[in-house]
Amino acid sequence: MKHRIYLDHAATTPLDKRVLKEMQPYFSEKFGNAGSLHFWGTEAREAVERARGEIAKAINAKPEEIIFTSGGTESDNLALQETVYPNRKKGNHIITTSFEHHAVLHTVQFLEKDGFEASCLPVTKEGFVELEEFEKALTAKTILASVMHANNEIGTIQPIAKIGEVCREKGILFHTDAVQTVGKEKIDVEKMNIDLLSASAHKFYGPKGVGFLYVRQGTKIHPLVHGGGHERGLRSGTENTPGIVGMASALKFAVKEMDKENARLKKLRNRLIDGCLGINDSWLNGGREPRLAANAALGFDFVEGESMVLMLSDKGIAASTGSACSTKSLEPSHVLRSLGLPHVKCHGSLRFTLGKDTKASDIDYVVKSLPPIVERLREISPLHKGVDLSEFEEDVEHVHEH
Amino acid sequence: MKHRIYLDHAATTPLDKRVLKEMQPYFSEKFGNAGSLHFWGTEAREAVERARGEIAKAINAKPEEIIFTSGGTESDNLALQETVYPNRKKGNHIITTSFEHHAVLHTVQFLEKDGFEASCLPVTKEGFVELEEFEKALTAKTILASVMHANNEIGTIQPIAKIGEVCREKGILFHTDAVQTVGKEKIDVEKMNIDLLSASAHKFYGPKGVGFLYVRQGTKIHPLVHGGGHERGLRSGTENTPGIVGMASALKFAVKEMDKENARLKKLRNRLIDGCLGINDSWLNGGREPRLAANAALGFDFVEGESMVLMLSDKGIAASTGSACSTKSLEPSHVLRSLGLPHVKCHGSLRFTLGKDTKASDIDYVVKSLPPIVERLREISPLHKGVDLSEFEEDVEHVHEH
Repeated sequence: MKHRIYLDHAATTPLDKRVLKEMQPYFSEKFGNAGSLHFWGTEAREAVERARGEIAKAINAKPEEIIFTSGGTESDNLALQETVYPNRKKGNHIITTSFEHHAVLHTVQFLEKDGFEASCLPVTKEGFVELEEFEKALTAKTILASVMHANNEIGTIQPIAKIGEVCREKGILFHTDAVQTVGKEKIDVEKMNIDLLSASAHKFYGPKGVGFLYVRQGTKIHPLVHGGGHERGLRSGTENTPGIVGMASALKFAVKEMDKENARLKKLRNRLIDGCLGINDSWLNGGREPRLAANAALGFDFVEGESMVLMLSDKGIAASTGSACSTKSLEPSHVLRSLGLPHVKCHGSLRFTLGKDTKASDIDYVVKSLPPIVERLREISPLHKGVDLSEFEEDVEHVHEH
Repeated sequence: MKHRIYLDHAATTPLDKRVLKEMQPYFSEKFGNAGSLHFWGTEAREAVERARGEIAKAINAKPEEIIFTSGGTESDNLALQETVYPNRKKGNHIITTSFEHHAVLHTVQFLEKDGFEASCLPVTKEGFVELEEFEKALTAKTILASVMHANNEIGTIQPIAKIGEVCREKGILFHTDAVQTVGKEKIDVEKMNIDLLSASAHKFYGPKGVGFLYVRQGTKIHPLVHGGGHERGLRSGTENTPGIVGMASALKFAVKEMDKENARLKKLRNRLIDGCLGINDSWLNGGREPRLAANAALGFDFVEGESMVLMLSDKGIAASTGSACSTKSLEPSHVLRSLGLPHVKCHGSLRFTLGKDTKASDIDYVVKSLPPIVERLREISPLHKGVDLSEFEEDVEHVHEH
């Protein structure tokens, strides 16, 4: 391939080479088990606690409020599964939104089978949760609300500080899946009244297989994984020292470079959106603002997203139809459905998410490469022009992706 | 420090540099999300599936029977927590042993609170589970047995093939925590009739933060972590590609070098045991055979294990009192207690676990360094000579380590 243009940073990011360099000593030299009493153990423990302190500072938390996990999905599961049982006497009602990541939605569905009740808030067609809707859903039995900070597919940023304020007033635990925003948007768990926050290192140029859950001091929570009692008994298992060091390092760089990088990305992103919207029968999924600086979620009539992704890949361009977790599913994106988009229109989605290495010339190459791809796919599409798309509504079989 | 002699390989091992080299491309170059449709995703998916195949082959399993996790503790939790509920109609009885790792014991205790009944088998004073005891514990309601392959503190190897055979005959699920044996002892899940097997990469020179659970085809099991449906729906979360590649690479080297390395280690280990037993009032914890080639678990009267570990550390030697997870606990090791050792004798334990870099000269340095340490500690010990140790039996406060 002549070009290698990776525009799928919402799925995962490359490990920053500066981060890898900081991780390096912890692989084969300072490799001790942070639980060991000897020199090797102490060395590892110090690195883990230093990382904990740095991460806490980045989101205005206390070090002891950071629990290391294996990633965002585990963090979401720990936050949801393990706070509702200790609060069950208070109530059994959970509020979430219809366009959360599956790590939240499927966990909530699992809890529903065990007797919890859940309200899945609708979102506007621009992709925003409304405070009014949130307040309407509150009941005397509500114990937990989980609203994502930014949506992973369409990048729209939710009014979580306002929702946090309401939750605080009502004494309801507030969790936010911030997997797409940690290192990309400013987060202050105090100002935003967040009780639980999930993050994943590989989304901000850190290593895969490591994440954290912020848990506000005093929150009743049980472990999901039992064992040696690591992480104050909340998450057993030998600490992944290089991973934890790498996560802290990556967050440090991300926070430092955030403002400048976001301004740069937003310009490129808008250039990409505007370029793509030059193709007829296309649209932007989700409102343009407030939206993650790197996200361009587009839709094209009469064409399959998967086919666009594959043809772009042949041209050396990485894009996606939506969440990487669901790419092998035939079911249309639940995120796009939540915007009120008909099935047939959901199938024509194409998400570009920019990153640190994205250059203006990359954007120009994409804007040049996409129209002939869309044109060619439309030529072979049975849905092309003249067909009334509304006829196809609701005719797609629901296939569960598990 | 002039010397740096790491003899705590049961706690964790350094990442093999050959393994790191094989992981390297997957950090920042072949960094795609294995769930993505495009070239970057396919590249990662291929690496993950190649690793799965290699790992499966190493234990005579099928690739689809390997579920990647974040490590041994998570594997144990998934194996135990998520097989008993789907089998609850059949029965509610679990058999395990009194000297399992806390990842098993604490999970079983958690299940007991939820209505399951557990039998904790006694072990002999040599540290072996007896088939007779196992058969005595069986009831019509037994649905699951969990017996570790080798004990993490004393290294004794359990008759798991025989236990597996009984379980197969009775239609009982058989789990083994093989965290200490994968890559160190031959494992054949077919011959040994194992249904579920836990492993952790960092115990065999692979990376921290990654492990696997073998799950025999057809086993009823639910996910512990819900989400995007990765790992056939059994373990959601973006695949840790470099970690998985590293685990497969480490296992490949470990299996290839196993016989030769075990013969070498056993010689050194016996030299270490015999040298240490030259100190008076000392003993070997657990029978000498069958025992992991690298394990020397010793005991010394009138001296605290923690003090020995710290003084050895000052001499540049890493040892431990037992499990790294429990080093900060004041409670005496449940493993040593299970051998029938009185409290006061459990406190004098010292575990050396050798590894690939251990040389004969290291052993000689330890054998030379230890006697003056023991002597000095005994001089300041209130328990020293003349005191009847049996008086101290059961006088140690139980402090929970969580």
